[in-house]
Amino acid sequence: MKKVDCIVRPDVLEEVKNELSKIKIHGMTVSQVFGCGLQKGKKEIYRGEEIEISLLPKVKIEIVTDDASVESIVDAVTKVARTGNVGDGKIFIYDIQDAIRIRTGERGEKAI
Amino acid sequence: MKKVDCIVRPDVLEEVKNELSKIKIHGMTVSQVFGCGLQKGKKEIYRGEEIEISLLPKVKIEIVTDDASVESIVDAVTKVARTGNVGDGKIFIYDIQDAIRIRTGERGEKAI
Amino acid sequence: MKKVDCIVRPDVLEEVKNELSKIKIHGMTVSQVFGCGLQKGKKEIYRGEEIEISLLPKVKIEIVTDDASVESIVDAVTKVARTGNVGDGKIFIYDIQDAIRIRTGERGEKAI
Ligand SMILES: Nc1ncnc2c1ncn2[C@@H]1O[C@H](COP(=O)(O)OP(=O)(O)OP(=O)(O)O)[C@@H](O)[C@H]1O
Ligand SMILES: Nc1ncnc2c1ncn2[C@@H]1O[C@H](COP(=O)(O)OP(=O)(O)OP(=O)(O)O)[C@@H](O)[C@H]1O
Ligand SMILES: Nc1ncnc2c1ncn2[C@@H]1O[C@H](COP(=O)(O)OP(=O)(O)OP(=O)(O)O)[C@@H](O)[C@H]1O
Ligand SMILES: [Mg+2]
Ligand SMILES: [Mg+2]
Ligand SMILES: [Mg+2]
Repeated sequence: MKKVDCIVRPDVLEEVKNELSKIKIHGMTVSQVFGCGLQKGKKEIYRGEEIEISLLPKVKIEIVTDDASVESIVDAVTKVARTGNVGDGKIFIYDIQDAIRIRTGERGEKAI
Repeated sequence: MKKVDCIVRPDVLEEVKNELSKIKIHGMTVSQVFGCGLQKGKKEIYRGEEIEISLLPKVKIEIVTDDASVESIVDAVTKVARTGNVGDGKIFIYDIQDAIRIRTGERGEKAI
Repeated sequence: MKKVDCIVRPDVLEEVKNELSKIKIHGMTVSQVFGCGLQKGKKEIYRGEEIEISLLPKVKIEIVTDDASVESIVDAVTKVARTGNVGDGKIFIYDIQDAIRIRTGERGEKAI
């Protein structure tokens, strides 16, 4: 199993969810984060305005999934999150050892 | 070492902390998240009310621990977070390579 | 590649960013968290006051980096986050499988 962390602009969250839904990905955990990338200290576009502040609001979407779905998740997120401007975001992929559905006690791929 | 991420209903946080305390687990990092699982787009119970919104408030509890404690953490969290209704939460388990206590510089299991 | 999670006092965030900048580390994701460590239930200093509450506000800084930079990141963060008092924070290190820059589609170390 893998965890796919997607850090994207806040305004694409709904569209990312819809695109993931099309490939039957429903389970996800979303949180508000602040970040910077290569352009630290340079200007970045946020909601149409150029601003100098170095930590910009982003949304982190964490998706735990079977190995086979990783590339289609990357494709779905990239498709809707890419504007071509700096600050479009990052995807990070991790191994995960086990998953448990608390309601049932199911473990492993059955639990995601 | 492992990281155990528990995503549970916000209202069980205190009880989870108490149950973990009984098994001598004190170190943890808590954050507010929003999530959905299998029931995306269907209704889920939140604070006694059935609501339609697809991203529900949850709490993420991250616990870094030695390998030997993982199963007792899973048991403790499951015991108090399970209501039997959909939305009880998930536990995800990851490997972790190293830990550092900043105050002392200790590393590895001594640092958790 | 590795992910280095640094959980530190909120008031050192700016200084940590500056110190990381000196070693050419710019990419990071920051979030507000609450935590406890060994002193659960005991008192801890927060903004100069001794308080009893067991979950204290902390800041989590997540840095995805090449393997070779991990030790210099640990050194930089420790240097500025260590006060010598309990509650200075923790650093946790994880393996990461892949990274994608959404704007360009670049993957792996080129994408961090
Ligand atoms: N190395 C990194 N470690 C952790 N988080 C990162 C890293 N790089 C970027 N991020 C997160 O991703 C967000 C978006 O990064 P961003 O898209 O600006 O990356 P970039 O490498 O600067 O690419 P671009 O040149 O397209 O802007 C950042 O605000 C931050 O939250
Ligand atoms: N695959 C997943 N990846 C990331 N986070 C997830 C995943 N599945 C669930 N979560 C997180 O766990 C929370 C609780 O999930 P939930 O208990 O509803 O899981 P479920 O699989 O739908 O099980 P149930 O049928 O018991 O509701 C979600 O709101 C979300 O934050
Ligand atoms: N085992 C752990 N798992 C997850 N998060 C932890 C763990 N231990 C500490 N943390 C996080 O790090 C923060 C700072 O921890 P802290 O510096 O108090 O660690 P400590 O082990 O108690 O060391 P000290 O004795 O120096 O206080 C906590 O508030 C919590 O967010
Ligand atoms: Mg950038
Ligand atoms: Mg559910
Ligand atoms: Mg402490």
